[in-house]
Amino acid sequence: MAGRVLVVNFKAYRTAFDSTAEAIAREASRLASSLGVRIIIAPPAPVAPRLTRIHEDVYLQHLDPIGFGAHTGSLPAEAAGLLGVRGSLVNHSERKMVLRDVARVVEALKRQGLESIVCADTPAEASAAAYLRPTMIAVEPPELIGTGIPVSKARPEVITESLEAVRRVADVPLLAGAGISSPEDAVRAVELGANGVLVASVVMKSPDPPAALRGLAEALASV
Amino acid sequence: MAGRVLVVNFKAYRTAFDSTAEAIAREASRLASSLGVRIIIAPPAPVAPRLTRIHEDVYLQHLDPIGFGAHTGSLPAEAAGLLGVRGSLVNHSERKMVLRDVARVVEALKRQGLESIVCADTPAEASAAAYLRPTMIAVEPPELIGTGIPVSKARPEVITESLEAVRRVADVPLLAGAGISSPEDAVRAVELGANGVLVASVVMKSPDPPAALRGLAEALASV
Amino acid sequence: MAGRVLVVNFKAYRTAFDSTAEAIAREASRLASSLGVRIIIAPPAPVAPRLTRIHEDVYLQHLDPIGFGAHTGSLPAEAAGLLGVRGSLVNHSERKMVLRDVARVVEALKRQGLESIVCADTPAEASAAAYLRPTMIAVEPPELIGTGIPVSKARPEVITESLEAVRRVADVPLLAGAGISSPEDAVRAVELGANGVLVASVVMKSPDPPAALRGLAEALASV
Amino acid sequence: MAGRVLVVNFKAYRTAFDSTAEAIAREASRLASSLGVRIIIAPPAPVAPRLTRIHEDVYLQHLDPIGFGAHTGSLPAEAAGLLGVRGSLVNHSERKMVLRDVARVVEALKRQGLESIVCADTPAEASAAAYLRPTMIAVEPPELIGTGIPVSKARPEVITESLEAVRRVADVPLLAGAGISSPEDAVRAVELGANGVLVASVVMKSPDPPAALRGLAEALASV
Repeated sequence: MAGRVLVVNFKAYRTAFDSTAEAIAREASRLASSLGVRIIIAPPAPVAPRLTRIHEDVYLQHLDPIGFGAHTGSLPAEAAGLLGVRGSLVNHSERKMVLRDVARVVEALKRQGLESIVCADTPAEASAAAYLRPTMIAVEPPELIGTGIPVSKARPEVITESLEAVRRVADVPLLAGAGISSPEDAVRAVELGANGVLVASVVMKSPDPPAALRGLAEALASV
Repeated sequence: MAGRVLVVNFKAYRTAFDSTAEAIAREASRLASSLGVRIIIAPPAPVAPRLTRIHEDVYLQHLDPIGFGAHTGSLPAEAAGLLGVRGSLVNHSERKMVLRDVARVVEALKRQGLESIVCADTPAEASAAAYLRPTMIAVEPPELIGTGIPVSKARPEVITESLEAVRRVADVPLLAGAGISSPEDAVRAVELGANGVLVASVVMKSPDPPAALRGLAEALASV
Repeated sequence: MAGRVLVVNFKAYRTAFDSTAEAIAREASRLASSLGVRIIIAPPAPVAPRLTRIHEDVYLQHLDPIGFGAHTGSLPAEAAGLLGVRGSLVNHSERKMVLRDVARVVEALKRQGLESIVCADTPAEASAAAYLRPTMIAVEPPELIGTGIPVSKARPEVITESLEAVRRVADVPLLAGAGISSPEDAVRAVELGANGVLVASVVMKSPDPPAALRGLAEALASV
Repeated sequence: MAGRVLVVNFKAYRTAFDSTAEAIAREASRLASSLGVRIIIAPPAPVAPRLTRIHEDVYLQHLDPIGFGAHTGSLPAEAAGLLGVRGSLVNHSERKMVLRDVARVVEALKRQGLESIVCADTPAEASAAAYLRPTMIAVEPPELIGTGIPVSKARPEVITESLEAVRRVADVPLLAGAGISSPEDAVRAVELGANGVLVASVVMKSPDPPAALRGLAEALASV
């Protein structure tokens, strides 16, 4: 059985930029060691490098489907390897790309020996993602993101149909996201067949982000 | 007379991400002190924070016209103040925005006590930028960017007409860019009325980037 | 004194596609003749050609800044002359372009002997538009579009400052738009110095669109 | 066996806007009757309505994933039914959309009783498209579009792998496109399992577009 995975997308919340970011990274590092759950944190690009000195499992949130060159205000996929990160989210619902650009970024990450988690809105998109053989696929119905209505309760069929769609194509672990707001929601996602969960606001907007992270990690360690 | 200004846009060249970035920052810091020329460096977002520990005059290349919140893979303008930078390029030719978004970013930077350099392709765009009262305006004919054909020789009227367009509206210093490939090109831009120059490839693609920077800075110190 | 101008942007309301479109075109044709007010109608692209057989003053709503060629789902600016229209709106608030693309479309229209009305959100953008010497400039604060809160009452300074910004650069007639919901609003815009108004919902969402058009046209004919 | 299908994307070639468009439509109508091959023509939006009076099988090239309302310069998917067309291309390589928008447009067309041909760059994208149950899927490797290097010879595995990817999900007919430049290329695509072909430049840039259409249609009728 593959180990459980907890991904925390820091998004662009204020806590992603201030000292909360370090506090979350420290707790992620501690929990990953003590619980044996993989905890990936995905801070904003200017914050990511400093967190790689605290926690070994840092992802970027987005990479552009371009190479090095005369691009201003973009982040070439092939620069990821120079930033100390382990991989990147790709095609998040808030930064969707057309499929050929998703493929370019996944391939650039592979060439650098880095990982990719391709996000998908639907089983259909998860199917397309599976053809790219990313490290993981995260399915998130965009209408539930940030709502606190957990996909694992409100739309469990999105998880099970995505699992089926992915398995038809390739053996790629699936994460579930959108609305995960409690440890129970995370457990339910795993019971439905997901390898883990992708969360954001439940940690980043919590009054105590490290504690929120701990609750989720402990729940995942228990199933 | 306002002091001379040299802006180095690191773009997304490989040298923007590797140890060349630190070497340029160190030389910029040294030259700014010794020559009395202001030298602004604009590295990619994930590189900027570490360079602020070397040189005090670091800009971002781009900010998104949004606030803190649930945005993945974006950099809110209001996060700039938490990154240690002094300001940002806005509306670069390779990351153009519609005008209302340019206004949003300039305003967000002002609220944080930070600077802005709004880029313009033409005198018309420079005129619009002047209404926003940014710290500086940089005019760059996009067809000359990266060509090595200097705007100050090939299209001097772009500089003089932009100066006129800006002055009709507000007293905002003007930089000239595009194709600046030698100290003489920079001097010529100042002789035409610009307060300084915006460069990229002449430094970033040089076999000796710090030396290329030095040549430009010394030339600007001499006029 | 230049003649008064009334522009009706059909947008993508249902009435823009059904037989209401013809009814508005017929009334526009009748009113333009009888009142001496210029009435420009701007229907969706697939509707425009058939309305040119009813009314001589039909504009497109948008053109892409490209030439003929291998483009799917785009409308090249240089195709306008083959469609029987007299000109096009450019850079509407709901279809904003970066300034260099605005320039490309205005120039392509001029080369074909066609007209352009460049839309602007602010006096700053109106200033930039004036450098392009379009046929007219229409200023519309986007936050008032569709609200029924008329720019001529709520934000009269947008009209007067835009007039001033445009006149610094070139002699281009100015239209005012956003929230114009009654003949009085249109009259007030003209009293502030506008040559006419740009409207949409007040006609397209009216229970009697031709009557709504008539009210506005008669009001403009009276000032 | 499903009938053969020939789709001609007029793109934005000059011939798509002038009297050539009518000539192609007339020949398409004649050939469809006489040969029993389905011939779909996809002209630019402002040209489509007039061609529906000549040929019954007219598609749009693109629809926007929006409903009726305050949109300038866009074409709502739900307006298609008022334009006399039979369906629309969706997600063409030159007008790519993110997958959720592809889904919106396909669903809007279904609600109106209209057809959809979803374009895909790769087998992965074809797989995702199959989940949407469009009328047909057209696979076109973008690097071959417009080259005259036919997909059916240069990259036959794109066709066969797309067929397999689609069949895993649903029974949707597949068209092949990109570089089809002769009747033989079209025949070869059908022999590989495609139900027909999607072409553009071979007809639109031909010295005799109706003759080029005829050659392709006769070839498809023969296999």
